[in-house]
Amino acid sequence: MKKLCYFLLLLFGFAQAQNSEEIETQLKSIYSTALLNGHSYSWLEHLSVQIGGRLSGSLNAERAVDWGKEELDLLGLDRVWLQPVMVPKWIRGTFEYAHIETSPGNTINVPVCALGGSVATPIAGIRAEVIEVDGIDSLKKMSKKDVAGKIVFFNRPMQADLINTFEAYSGCVAQRYSGAEEAAKLGAVAVIVRSMNLRLDDFPHTGSMSYGGLSIRKRIPAAAISTNGAELLSSMLALNSKLRFYLKQNCKNLPDVQSYNVIGEIKGSEKSDEIMVVGGHLDSWDLGGGAHDDGAGVVQSMEVLRIFKEIGYQPKRTIRVVLFMNEENGMRGAIKYTSISKAKNENHVFALESDAGGFTPRGFSIDSSPEKLKIIQSWEPYFEPYLIHLFVQGGSGADVGHLKTDANILAGLRPDSQRYFDYHHAANDTFDKINKRELELGAATMAAFVYLIDYFSL
Amino acid sequence: MKKLCYFLLLLFGFAQAQNSEEIETQLKSIYSTALLNGHSYSWLEHLSVQIGGRLSGSLNAERAVDWGKEELDLLGLDRVWLQPVMVPKWIRGTFEYAHIETSPGNTINVPVCALGGSVATPIAGIRAEVIEVDGIDSLKKMSKKDVAGKIVFFNRPMQADLINTFEAYSGCVAQRYSGAEEAAKLGAVAVIVRSMNLRLDDFPHTGSMSYGGLSIRKRIPAAAISTNGAELLSSMLALNSKLRFYLKQNCKNLPDVQSYNVIGEIKGSEKSDEIMVVGGHLDSWDLGGGAHDDGAGVVQSMEVLRIFKEIGYQPKRTIRVVLFMNEENGMRGAIKYTSISKAKNENHVFALESDAGGFTPRGFSIDSSPEKLKIIQSWEPYFEPYLIHLFVQGGSGADVGHLKTDANILAGLRPDSQRYFDYHHAANDTFDKINKRELELGAATMAAFVYLIDYFSL
Repeated sequence: MKKLCYFLLLLFGFAQAQNSEEIETQLKSIYSTALLNGHSYSWLEHLSVQIGGRLSGSLNAERAVDWGKEELDLLGLDRVWLQPVMVPKWIRGTFEYAHIETSPGNTINVPVCALGGSVATPIAGIRAEVIEVDGIDSLKKMSKKDVAGKIVFFNRPMQADLINTFEAYSGCVAQRYSGAEEAAKLGAVAVIVRSMNLRLDDFPHTGSMSYGGLSIRKRIPAAAISTNGAELLSSMLALNSKLRFYLKQNCKNLPDVQSYNVIGEIKGSEKSDEIMVVGGHLDSWDLGGGAHDDGAGVVQSMEVLRIFKEIGYQPKRTIRVVLFMNEENGMRGAIKYTSISKAKNENHVFALESDAGGFTPRGFSIDSSPEKLKIIQSWEPYFEPYLIHLFVQGGSGADVGHLKTDANILAGLRPDSQRYFDYHHAANDTFDKINKRELELGAATMAAFVYLIDYFSL
Repeated sequence: MKKLCYFLLLLFGFAQAQNSEEIETQLKSIYSTALLNGHSYSWLEHLSVQIGGRLSGSLNAERAVDWGKEELDLLGLDRVWLQPVMVPKWIRGTFEYAHIETSPGNTINVPVCALGGSVATPIAGIRAEVIEVDGIDSLKKMSKKDVAGKIVFFNRPMQADLINTFEAYSGCVAQRYSGAEEAAKLGAVAVIVRSMNLRLDDFPHTGSMSYGGLSIRKRIPAAAISTNGAELLSSMLALNSKLRFYLKQNCKNLPDVQSYNVIGEIKGSEKSDEIMVVGGHLDSWDLGGGAHDDGAGVVQSMEVLRIFKEIGYQPKRTIRVVLFMNEENGMRGAIKYTSISKAKNENHVFALESDAGGFTPRGFSIDSSPEKLKIIQSWEPYFEPYLIHLFVQGGSGADVGHLKTDANILAGLRPDSQRYFDYHHAANDTFDKINKRELELGAATMAAFVYLIDYFSL
């Protein structure tokens, strides 16, 4: 009996060592393929330069859908299809302009851009006194008397001593999203919001905003101002609290239009009804090229399937790449994908999103049971040679988050976050801000993770 | 007795918890100071933009010395001084030019730059056939017959599937450093070396080279060619192995000149004879602004002492910032500093260098006994909130490496390495390639490490 036990233990140990070796070899092969023969970088060049910014409902978004489908068709997947979804269509219009009137007749221009979803100003613009607040909570403490007839200037900066810049973003994004709604309730005529950027520069950063339940006639224009512009305005207000600010923009909300999620899949060889998703969002804001947000996530997700094809890895489960439409201003693509997969009773055991930029990957944020997280953390040694060290409990991604069940695992790629908000939603989110190797390492890290999830059927 | 043991254990546990809390608070304070009120970024702007490239022996190097001393003087250290050292003076001259003659009369210009230390070509330039080799080893297998009268083109690329780009650099830097010496021995008339860059672009990357023991009349000109230029030349050679290459440069070696290491120190309160060094090198190559190499290391090292002053931390040991002169082409500053400290019988218990760029810090490479490395690795939890995870056995830095003893600890900051060689020794190593937060996180991480070394008197 003792001998048998010993033999079994040996056998088990041997099998484990074999597994480890197989996994290490496969990971090496994944990373080498991404770095030596990757497609993500040239794909991203096309998506963010040849096509460019691609806001939902725009011609460029249509082009991106066509391009995504064409490229996936070339990969020899088992199935590629478009999933129709109606999306909002907001257009920036032909002008956005603002200045500070430092004294009657003296003005200084400041860089602004309309927030996504904002209404226009009257054609003649809005000229009014300014009240500066350091966020939504401060505004809520004010009375109509303080605010009515004025432009509310939200000037809460991102907190620079938080190491993870996404935390700093969370700490002040409410002023962008709900600032106009709250200010309008107190009778403000417009809102100006400090750009969500840790750097002092001249790029205004757009982003989604909502009027909540406000009726159309109560909605007021909302614009972002660059961080340098915000600093200037704040200094000027300290000198003269009665100065006037002038804002003019002619953005517009149009009726919904048809668009698509782009989907491709490799059928699983053993458990084809267990679906693993990798994805990013195909739409982007209109100001830049949507290179980091989220062109990077799109091409990395496509690259995961391409790498598996290239190294000849046949997943046991079905793996699906989903390029979600309309993450930025409506989330309609994710909602549609989820509702259809529910109607079809599809079993999504795993979903991974890349939507935090194409920077050096550091690990994953994981939304799962503590038991499954523990198993994932036990894989850390496999990732050590690739300097991947973060496997933490946390949110996954805005799109795949909709797929959450009690049983499944969701995850988000966690790249280095220091530079992300320098470019986020701004005109400088362009291809030249992408480092090829960093992008490729992200794709490889996603592929390695999906491979392990599949290998262990977790 | 049992009760006493229990009591002592409790007391010990309590003291440990108190220590941990003190350390955590101090680290938080260090990081917050660097991120909210850091000086490294504006220092680096001055050093890399207002002064700019500062090759040893140049006027800019003198300016950098003056600036370094002035800034250290302002910090209220216990002592600031200049340490004289004679340094080589090599100047690039007024032209460097190259073209490929694809057929008689047809030429394509390619970007080249002289390697540091190279001799000039004759004024009329050198025009010769080209022999392409993939590194020093391949060249050594050749005979004089193959090489004599030709230009040797070293075209070994950096290996892209190595995760740490410094490893890829090590794998081919010999062709730059010794290529001319070896080629000259076989009768070559010049060497052209592929730039040490993983990216395909148009920047030639300079760097040091040596003729070894070759007599002056046997020395041949050496130049770097951009990676795109190298790819082009290689393609053209595949079509026509008899094509000619033309190179012209008028760089020059001049007599040594006097320069300085810049040094400042805070005297230790308890063990002032135990010296901890933080440093980087003040000189840089001449083509760019020396922003990442090694302006970043210089300002981060200065920032360590400034942070201690600002948070009111009085180290038990003496901490010294050393801005080494002439790391790039002679190492004279480090050699001088070491020989003087030996003569004075100074006890350098610890030395840390930052010379791998101002990118997001990942950890440290540590040159110490395995026992001390283990203790350092036990501090990892303190660094976890700052995403610092690498504490590995390895080399420290080219300058502080000279201070090695059996007993002491040397270390090198290990920032993310993916982008480093995009800029290394090239005209694009400029201030705009620096991210303020990444630079500041590096400085804070160094300060935190020095603090712990001091706290535990390791």
